[in-house]
Amino acid sequence: MAFYADTIEFHTKGEVDIKDITNDVVGIVKESGLNNGIACVFTPSSTSAITTIEYEPGLLRDLPDALEKLFPKKARYEHEMRWHDGNGHSHVRASFMSPSLSIPFVDGNPVLGTWQQIVFVELDNKARNRKLLVHLVGE
Amino acid sequence: MAFYADTIEFHTKGEVDIKDITNDVVGIVKESGLNNGIACVFTPSSTSAITTIEYEPGLLRDLPDALEKLFPKKARYEHEMRWHDGNGHSHVRASFMSPSLSIPFVDGNPVLGTWQQIVFVELDNKARNRKLLVHLVGE
Amino acid sequence: MAFYADTIEFHTKGEVDIKDITNDVVGIVKESGLNNGIACVFTPSSTSAITTIEYEPGLLRDLPDALEKLFPKKARYEHEMRWHDGNGHSHVRASFMSPSLSIPFVDGNPVLGTWQQIVFVELDNKARNRKLLVHLVGE
Repeated sequence: MAFYADTIEFHTKGEVDIKDITNDVVGIVKESGLNNGIACVFTPSSTSAITTIEYEPGLLRDLPDALEKLFPKKARYEHEMRWHDGNGHSHVRASFMSPSLSIPFVDGNPVLGTWQQIVFVELDNKARNRKLLVHLVGE
Repeated sequence: MAFYADTIEFHTKGEVDIKDITNDVVGIVKESGLNNGIACVFTPSSTSAITTIEYEPGLLRDLPDALEKLFPKKARYEHEMRWHDGNGHSHVRASFMSPSLSIPFVDGNPVLGTWQQIVFVELDNKARNRKLLVHLVGE
Repeated sequence: MAFYADTIEFHTKGEVDIKDITNDVVGIVKESGLNNGIACVFTPSSTSAITTIEYEPGLLRDLPDALEKLFPKKARYEHEMRWHDGNGHSHVRASFMSPSLSIPFVDGNPVLGTWQQIVFVELDNKARNRKLLVHLVGE
């Protein structure tokens, strides 16, 4: 059993920028030399999320549309009343979507469905530099 | 410290078929011979999810009702405009609900609440064969 | 590689009581003596959730407001028709939000964003005693 850690860094364009980070995670599992285990992908942020999706242009519009319908940017947020940074909706969306995703890997590869990619979802209302953690445990 | 992996396979009836997989996960932890650790249950799919729920007939209707209210099947999805497979809502629901669940186990048993079962949620619009991964790390 | 486990116990005031458990998790990682790994925080319950949020008074109102808008307490729940315990909405909210959160730690500290705290969200309609599990794997 061993532990391995690395990070993924990139720039985002603000909301709702959805980044396909599958190849980054695949690369980190390969570099680790581990064959089988669990990979934890985490965004140390309260205005972004990690999930999986079929990364195709239709859904890259449907996911933001659903977020806007469920947590409208123009709704009243007490966060906005206090801090005036315009991202109350970003925080609420992030708490629902989760900053963390754990993915099994087998024979040196994360096991994903055919149409399933690992994505970072930028929920903040401005462009950001992001640094994700990828922690592996396995053998 | 050791690693152990197994899979769970079953057939679903299409949306929204909710399967109680608690006994499968309990069985895998027992077979592993591990006493204490973390179990990661993952669905390699972009149209299904893993969560927990009190598995009783009322909630087996309430969860689908909430999904339909929040992400209606008949809404417009760009995914549908491009691919015409009728499951745009399935993908968006799955990205919100998460394909992954990590559960602690103690003395050879997953630690769950009295009214808490581990469930697979089929969100796709057709019957599917599913194969979940269960990866354990512990001692 | 080693495994370490501890629990966090507290009392809640009922819905929607949001508890900042960051210091508890930080303390458990320190006591473990582990430097780098993954921490899994889990609530063994079908009416509560674990997530992260910026723990400030505005968002402590915005998150409950969003929950009420998306899963209204007064809506019809089949769970209520059968069990009459008044918490159908609590169960549905919990299944969406997830009972589990995995967080990487580095140099003996969970890695969180500047404005990101780990929180327990009480979704049940009454005051409860809660006991969370925190399971660590790492080195």
